[in-house]
Amino acid sequence: MASPDELPLRPELRGRSPYGAPQVPAAHRLNTNENPFPLPAELLADLGAALGHAALELNRYPDRDAVELRAGLAEYLSRTSGEAIGPRQVWAANGSNEVLQQILQAFGGAGRTALGFTPSYSMHPIIAAGTGTGWADGHRRADFTIDAEQAAAQVRDTAPDVVFVTSPNNPTGTAVALETIGRIYDATTGVVVVDEAYAEFARAGTPSALTLLPGRPRLIVSRTMSKAFGMAGLRLGYLAADPAVVDALQLVRLPYHLGSLTQAAARTALAHTDALLATVDAVKAQRDRIVAALPVMGLTSVPSDANFVLFGHFLDQAKAWQALLDRGVLVRDVGLPGWLRVTAGTEEETDAFLTALGEIAPDHRTTQGG
Amino acid sequence: MASPDELPLRPELRGRSPYGAPQVPAAHRLNTNENPFPLPAELLADLGAALGHAALELNRYPDRDAVELRAGLAEYLSRTSGEAIGPRQVWAANGSNEVLQQILQAFGGAGRTALGFTPSYSMHPIIAAGTGTGWADGHRRADFTIDAEQAAAQVRDTAPDVVFVTSPNNPTGTAVALETIGRIYDATTGVVVVDEAYAEFARAGTPSALTLLPGRPRLIVSRTMSKAFGMAGLRLGYLAADPAVVDALQLVRLPYHLGSLTQAAARTALAHTDALLATVDAVKAQRDRIVAALPVMGLTSVPSDANFVLFGHFLDQAKAWQALLDRGVLVRDVGLPGWLRVTAGTEEETDAFLTALGEIAPDHRTTQGG
Repeated sequence: MASPDELPLRPELRGRSPYGAPQVPAAHRLNTNENPFPLPAELLADLGAALGHAALELNRYPDRDAVELRAGLAEYLSRTSGEAIGPRQVWAANGSNEVLQQILQAFGGAGRTALGFTPSYSMHPIIAAGTGTGWADGHRRADFTIDAEQAAAQVRDTAPDVVFVTSPNNPTGTAVALETIGRIYDATTGVVVVDEAYAEFARAGTPSALTLLPGRPRLIVSRTMSKAFGMAGLRLGYLAADPAVVDALQLVRLPYHLGSLTQAAARTALAHTDALLATVDAVKAQRDRIVAALPVMGLTSVPSDANFVLFGHFLDQAKAWQALLDRGVLVRDVGLPGWLRVTAGTEEETDAFLTALGEIAPDHRTTQGG
Repeated sequence: MASPDELPLRPELRGRSPYGAPQVPAAHRLNTNENPFPLPAELLADLGAALGHAALELNRYPDRDAVELRAGLAEYLSRTSGEAIGPRQVWAANGSNEVLQQILQAFGGAGRTALGFTPSYSMHPIIAAGTGTGWADGHRRADFTIDAEQAAAQVRDTAPDVVFVTSPNNPTGTAVALETIGRIYDATTGVVVVDEAYAEFARAGTPSALTLLPGRPRLIVSRTMSKAFGMAGLRLGYLAADPAVVDALQLVRLPYHLGSLTQAAARTALAHTDALLATVDAVKAQRDRIVAALPVMGLTSVPSDANFVLFGHFLDQAKAWQALLDRGVLVRDVGLPGWLRVTAGTEEETDAFLTALGEIAPDHRTTQGG
């Protein structure tokens, strides 16, 4: 094997490590916000038939524009948001990561800048770097909420070409008010990407930014089938925006980027939306159970509209992470001093997590008890 | 719908059209170099079982490093090339387009340049543009071969960071001598990507650039399962190189880029390599039949080691393209004056193509008869 120094790698990549959650064996994996429920039996049966049918034409290139899939996604978004979304407003790719990468290729890139309100989804700055886009950190309050006034002022001052707003935010679970998103939009001439990967887990009364799309051609709302739909293995991300945005992304998408099997599986899942989303309420119940149990242990959490909870405070979150892992529970250390993130899973997973947490809390929590 | 001018699109993308072969209805689609043979029945049965098994865990993220798949690809390359290739030398992505994009993200990008010997695969400059990489056209002789001496001199003068050598070349079918690739490698400090998408169709005695890998850490050989494996709908491209190259690409790959269904289907196909590649000989026989029939019609072709033939000369290839389409045969106008490209398919497809070509040749060929 050659030394990395023998390769003409881009200088900014030298010495870096690949991104990704540590892959550690554990009895309870609550570190990547997966949906713990396997797919419903009737969907599995239909998937088998749909994939078998798609395999018969696997020697042919897939539908380059994924027309049928986009129509199904548009129907789903329209039905759940109450906002009429047409197929020409929807675009899909291999995971929302690829959707975001295409957005940055079209609207970011060399000599341009993206801004995101950190701490947030750590792939945003990484995909920015991978597309040569500069990065600016946006401010949050100490409680991880975004101050609309301050955010708009910062966006005006920084003049980014792309603004990311993650709502509900990962890793904090914080939903962003639509008014704040509107203020940010008005403060920029760039595109505003609202990353709604966890939107389906929001508490009642938290509307989607989809309702802001009319009259805002520079607004993009991204979604995924990895979380609420429970299909992280499929890699299907998508967005809704003005049709002109979709046309723009087709200038940078790799032709035939979305395979026939992926398209067939996603279309089939959309026909089982109600059964799939039935798991969402079960997950939300476990999230709320975690939130309620924390104060009893002298711990606290950030209000969460997602399928995970950011909890603390710990004297040293890395040591608390290890202590939980020693008890078979793998959570995520997202690098926020005093905090850890846990995925809300099944009732049994929550039992295991709360039991382990109860054991380690006295030794690891800060003395102020929250 | 907003006007494109209302969007802050990158200036170099303004006014462009999405890349892709025109999707035109036709009885015989011989325009995208697909393999005309459906997958063998025993593979279809195994695929059904493998995909059904993968679907059971679709709520979980896929193997981020595709370890088992890469081992299978390494075994295939080793067995067919005679060169020992290990799993750590192999990387896979959603089509060779994504493999090439990752290469340009790591070794090209803003302020860097790629060089390719045009006419060649038209996605090379497009992916370069999509990653902010500059582009330089390399020279070919009038017969579309590459002069090793001249190519090495041009590479030395241009000093590109990435050099593409397509062998067999698309759209001309031209294989490149290993000595030429070696000379180009020695003339650059950049990476050299040998795009071998059509390698399995080469005539006997055309060795793969895989045999050049030892001692050349900047050499990358890319392959695909879209052509010889007959799985264009799967979107599975891969490469072999020094393990340090694979490590570098993991710095720019999107995490979990390759879905569980794609990995499962590709692994299953590799277990049926012999049955899949049985179609290669049938396709090569039709290619050679096309080549042999052309002179009888006063036409000629470029020597081909691929599953297609570049044929001419026509007074106006766009008119000849339309005349063939009027007879139900869709071929590809790749923009080379006087030439068209036809995919070698089934015996019936070749019958239809040669019949139509025989009808239109007298009106459309150049008078010099070749």
